[in-house]
Amino acid sequence: MKKVKTNKRQLILDEAAKLFKERGFAGTSMRDLGAQVGMEAASMYNHINSKDEILETICFYVSNTYISHLTEIENTADSYVDKIKALIRLHIRLMVEDGAAVSVGNNDWKYLTGNKLAEFKEARKRYERGFATLIEEGIAAGEFQPVNVSVALFTILSAVRWVELWYRPGRGVSPEELEENIMTILLNGLAR
Amino acid sequence: MKKVKTNKRQLILDEAAKLFKERGFAGTSMRDLGAQVGMEAASMYNHINSKDEILETICFYVSNTYISHLTEIENTADSYVDKIKALIRLHIRLMVEDGAAVSVGNNDWKYLTGNKLAEFKEARKRYERGFATLIEEGIAAGEFQPVNVSVALFTILSAVRWVELWYRPGRGVSPEELEENIMTILLNGLAR
Repeated sequence: MKKVKTNKRQLILDEAAKLFKERGFAGTSMRDLGAQVGMEAASMYNHINSKDEILETICFYVSNTYISHLTEIENTADSYVDKIKALIRLHIRLMVEDGAAVSVGNNDWKYLTGNKLAEFKEARKRYERGFATLIEEGIAAGEFQPVNVSVALFTILSAVRWVELWYRPGRGVSPEELEENIMTILLNGLAR
Repeated sequence: MKKVKTNKRQLILDEAAKLFKERGFAGTSMRDLGAQVGMEAASMYNHINSKDEILETICFYVSNTYISHLTEIENTADSYVDKIKALIRLHIRLMVEDGAAVSVGNNDWKYLTGNKLAEFKEARKRYERGFATLIEEGIAAGEFQPVNVSVALFTILSAVRWVELWYRPGRGVSPEELEENIMTILLNGLAR
């Protein structure tokens, strides 16, 4: 019984992420969502409390995934090159495997309210600060070129974030090739 | 007299680009625009014919700028590294100097209609094809790493497109440093 309930809840969350990505959080009603998952709005409330709760769950799933990986990476003894590679890989994988949730975390987080909004912004800052620190330490260690840290951070984040908008698996580039190519360009540069 | 009229027209176009960027094309009325430029909607029509005409003018200003530079770059005898650098520089400069228009060209072009929409899409395709060809030829010439051309193209375009969202001049990074750093990362890579 518990299992079924959990699966239904997950199904609702997955379909909600897709609808939010497509129509935005504001443009999606619980009725739309019910139609999508094939449930009456009323019976969806056995699994979730509100549209806000769905948004929170999706956004914090994304931010927790990023932060737990970042923390893990920070604690390894790997080179800074490998640490940044691991972060780029994380972004691309999450985008390919869970694109709708990532899109909600990128675009619809602004509909979070009160504490949840503050908490999400804090998590984002923590992530960007941690990523920037790895770049900074990599420069200090002589592994990276002496670039401006903010420019490097946002260039990398921009390059990986847009994968969501143009990449479709099955159009000639496998997820592995995508990863490999983006890492090559960002770490080693396009020029030989 | 002609001069004043031209200036007024340019003022209307500039303010329209800012409003479209802020509120979107659909969310901006001629009344909003009139309030912004300090003119009655009726007297704005001495300088422009319609909101659609404004959108067209802005979108084709952007696409013509990209395409005329691309054509110029294609016709130089520079190395492929220098050609790609020139394109990256063009994107960043246009973004820094004319951010609102670039944003409209990136986001609001979808409100173009009929022939104009087809023409704009064609221009974008021409630009992307030309950019991709330079990458392809640079790989063939041994100047670039043998990366997937589409991944390289979209990684570069994504990295420069997002400058619009995070970069503000006067926050410690000059436009020249921005240019220099992004080119270093995309051409030579973050790693030493």
